[in-house]
Amino acid sequence: MTRQMNHTAPAVLGRARELVEPALRLAVGKLADPQMRLIAGYQMGWCDADGRPTEGGGKAIRPALAVLSAEAVLGTADCGIPGALAVELVHNFSLLHDDVMDRDVERRHRPTGWVVFGDGQAILAGNAMLTLAIELLAEWGLAGRRSLPCLLDATQLLISGQSQDLRLEQAEAVELHEVLAMESGKTAALLSCASSIGALAAGAPEHIVAGLAAFGEELGIAFQLVDDILGVVGDPAKTGKSSSSDVRAGKRSAPIVAAMSGDSRAATELRELFSGEPPATEADVERATQLITEAGGLDWAVREADRRLATALEHLAGLELVDSAAAELAAVATYIVSRDR
Amino acid sequence: MTRQMNHTAPAVLGRARELVEPALRLAVGKLADPQMRLIAGYQMGWCDADGRPTEGGGKAIRPALAVLSAEAVLGTADCGIPGALAVELVHNFSLLHDDVMDRDVERRHRPTGWVVFGDGQAILAGNAMLTLAIELLAEWGLAGRRSLPCLLDATQLLISGQSQDLRLEQAEAVELHEVLAMESGKTAALLSCASSIGALAAGAPEHIVAGLAAFGEELGIAFQLVDDILGVVGDPAKTGKSSSSDVRAGKRSAPIVAAMSGDSRAATELRELFSGEPPATEADVERATQLITEAGGLDWAVREADRRLATALEHLAGLELVDSAAAELAAVATYIVSRDR
Repeated sequence: MTRQMNHTAPAVLGRARELVEPALRLAVGKLADPQMRLIAGYQMGWCDADGRPTEGGGKAIRPALAVLSAEAVLGTADCGIPGALAVELVHNFSLLHDDVMDRDVERRHRPTGWVVFGDGQAILAGNAMLTLAIELLAEWGLAGRRSLPCLLDATQLLISGQSQDLRLEQAEAVELHEVLAMESGKTAALLSCASSIGALAAGAPEHIVAGLAAFGEELGIAFQLVDDILGVVGDPAKTGKSSSSDVRAGKRSAPIVAAMSGDSRAATELRELFSGEPPATEADVERATQLITEAGGLDWAVREADRRLATALEHLAGLELVDSAAAELAAVATYIVSRDR
Repeated sequence: MTRQMNHTAPAVLGRARELVEPALRLAVGKLADPQMRLIAGYQMGWCDADGRPTEGGGKAIRPALAVLSAEAVLGTADCGIPGALAVELVHNFSLLHDDVMDRDVERRHRPTGWVVFGDGQAILAGNAMLTLAIELLAEWGLAGRRSLPCLLDATQLLISGQSQDLRLEQAEAVELHEVLAMESGKTAALLSCASSIGALAAGAPEHIVAGLAAFGEELGIAFQLVDDILGVVGDPAKTGKSSSSDVRAGKRSAPIVAAMSGDSRAATELRELFSGEPPATEADVERATQLITEAGGLDWAVREADRRLATALEHLAGLELVDSAAAELAAVATYIVSRDR
């Protein structure tokens, strides 16, 4: 009964965090090298640069999906935990590395890993976290063996997505389908893995695993589109980034490319103002942000995110799952795609 | 009979390369992302920056050890191949990443990966090669499951060794035992893994696997010491690096630290001249090189490498192995630690 009443997404995410974080701390504690352990702890939001404990940490969306995907097929929550740890470690490996490559200086209101520890140590700590994620599954008998290919496939797609992202930054013209393919690798692949890895570990039939993976893939695109929207019109207090951060950085995210591809007057002006180079002045940033809205880029992204979320929920509804876990998966999905998160 | 006559190390290395390279090319060909495939092929020495085939490639020492370690326990050579591919991929992952971190611009007489493809793509291709190495073992049933922990442990030690290396570069004073611990991680761990992974896959008893790993560990230190010697007095035509390359770079390698730690006049002068900063002039480089010799740094390194090789061969001699494969392991070990390779 209590469980039934806790279907709200924040409660579900909170429960998953309580379940997963102690195990995640134990796992990171297994890193033999103290420097790698320190950087991993910093990246996870558990400590400051000197190792002193801090409050914080990510929202643990991926671990929650992993645990729920085990529960949804009648597996125990425990059965979802190794996969939950693995996806969270791979997620943080990619954040550490991406920040080095993108020269991003701030994440979750703190300096990024390479700013604090240097490029080399940040890259190495990322490698250590990726390797640790795989060690956790490799040590975990049959369930680990079932889930390892899912994690490795997602990791390759993640790597490929980041590589495409760097290439698109250099490209003269960028098409919307290229941006969406890149986002599928960079964001959706790991959410798809997280949404199915617990079910895989629990030994669920193939069509259930595939259905959950499809749910996670659509959810991942929706999630990324919302991130893109917030990169144009997000509230700095909530996003931890400057306002119009993607516009300021000259980033051609999906809503921006969608806005540029129209033939309205606004789209034409936007193309002239914004060709992948960061806008020169603060007035240009404001004007570009306004034009992205006028040219329909944000409307398109909102519609597309909603459509993707609806498709994700349809995938979910089509599967025979434990009702309470399915409801929690739906609640988490709807919550993380809401624009005021 | 023919097999018996081919015990010379170059013949053994040649045979291992013939056995392993086609499988390695197939494996790298599985990387779905064309950019990751291109960079991996470039790193392996198979193609130029535009993907045109080239002659070249490494000496394939690690794959040879892996194949021989399977044969030494009555496994087939085939049984050593997945491990051979995996260690070679992990080796090249670490080379790609280390070159980024160390800003090294040349390797095997060619520009390094990051010089050609940029830091980000080089880091990503390294990640893709590491992930691929693990995929190969994860896909390989029982034998892969047996060998995966060995590869993952070695990878963590490799990461840790490179992290220590970067930290020692920043340190004011460096002790010889710290350099040797770093070299154990950076070089010996993967050679130890290579020397035992084939036996693991073939299901050899634990004491044989441990003995082969100990052989590889000692061999790895000897191998690295010879590399360090060549970094002081190597022939540029053979090493592909400038003469006195480590002296010029201000690198505190084992023989240099050994030379600095004495209390002879030469050691004192060397400490004054060479404190981790690159020597200022060409005359300083020459003088430092001379002082490293005079203070006994090279003699120490030669003796220590010989002692480590002898210990490695003792480990080998103490194990019940297939005679021909054991002889080939000994031949390869002796060959790669010779100073004129």
